Amino acid sequence: MQSAVRRIVSVGVQVMKKVTMKQEDVAAFGNLIGDHNPIHSDLAAAKAAGFPSTICYGMFAGSLFSGLMATELPGPNTVYISQNLRFLAPVFVGDELEIIAKVTQFRRDRGLIEMATIVQKKDPTDENKRITCVDGFAVGLNKTVEFKGESTWKTR
Amino acid sequence: MQSAVRRIVSVGVQVMKKVTMKQEDVAAFGNLIGDHNPIHSDLAAAKAAGFPSTICYGMFAGSLFSGLMATELPGPNTVYISQNLRFLAPVFVGDELEIIAKVTQFRRDRGLIEMATIVQKKDPTDENKRITCVDGFAVGLNKTVEFKGESTWKTR
Repeated sequence: MQSAVRRIVSVGVQVMKKVTMKQEDVAAFGNLIGDHNPIHSDLAAAKAAGFPSTICYGMFAGSLFSGLMATELPGPNTVYISQNLRFLAPVFVGDELEIIAKVTQFRRDRGLIEMATIVQKKDPTDENKRITCVDGFAVGLNKTVEFKGESTWKTR
Repeated sequence: MQSAVRRIVSVGVQVMKKVTMKQEDVAAFGNLIGDHNPIHSDLAAAKAAGFPSTICYGMFAGSLFSGLMATELPGPNTVYISQNLRFLAPVFVGDELEIIAKVTQFRRDRGLIEMATIVQKKDPTDENKRITCVDGFAVGLNKTVEFKGESTWKTR
């Protein structure tokens, strides 16, 4: 007997995980995509380009949603349909990030779930504020979750 | 004296690179995003889920554009502004991919360049056809390239 709990999907449901951006991970991502610009791995090169620290690839920060969706919301058995990303502020090595996915709408009949996806970090000038580094919307298909409530659906 | 050639950006300019998807790279990407679903690393698990081989993370395939843009078109000094992705067909370990970026429009006054971004592979049933695995549009900002010709600009 399987004891897995069905995930509940309703508009407004949100998950968050914290990730501290590590140099070794940024370097590994650069190797995977074939971009070896030293601003991502060499502190002196990053500083020469005007950055306070080595800078994370935007797509690496954006890809952290993928892990959150596969494991948390909608969770296992999700097919990734689409992802829109805007890169709004840089992510640096050492930054403590909050990766957020929040259900914005769903189509129960097709098992489609849209989430707002956000990468944010603390504003160094105000501990209580957040800077949005990446935002966008993801759509996943998952026929194993439990939908609660109603939702309209518009294509963005 | 710097001898670097300025990149030419005009509507229709296209670059392509070929990538063969490797198991070790798929596993490394999974570690980076915290998704360890065995369909990405264990052939038996992938086959049990109905796939012919282990399956690449959609965001990994989508991230290959990032390397192409940083190195080829628009090339060095590009700031990544946005990326939209649709995951249309699976990418499997062993697939030989063509990663394509093609200029669709630009705004010379702001240095903005939009590209259609495509990951495709050969159709196993017809050598002359291609299957689009991922498509979308990227916008990059680059003030060091040379723009040729004219372009309208519409926000997608």
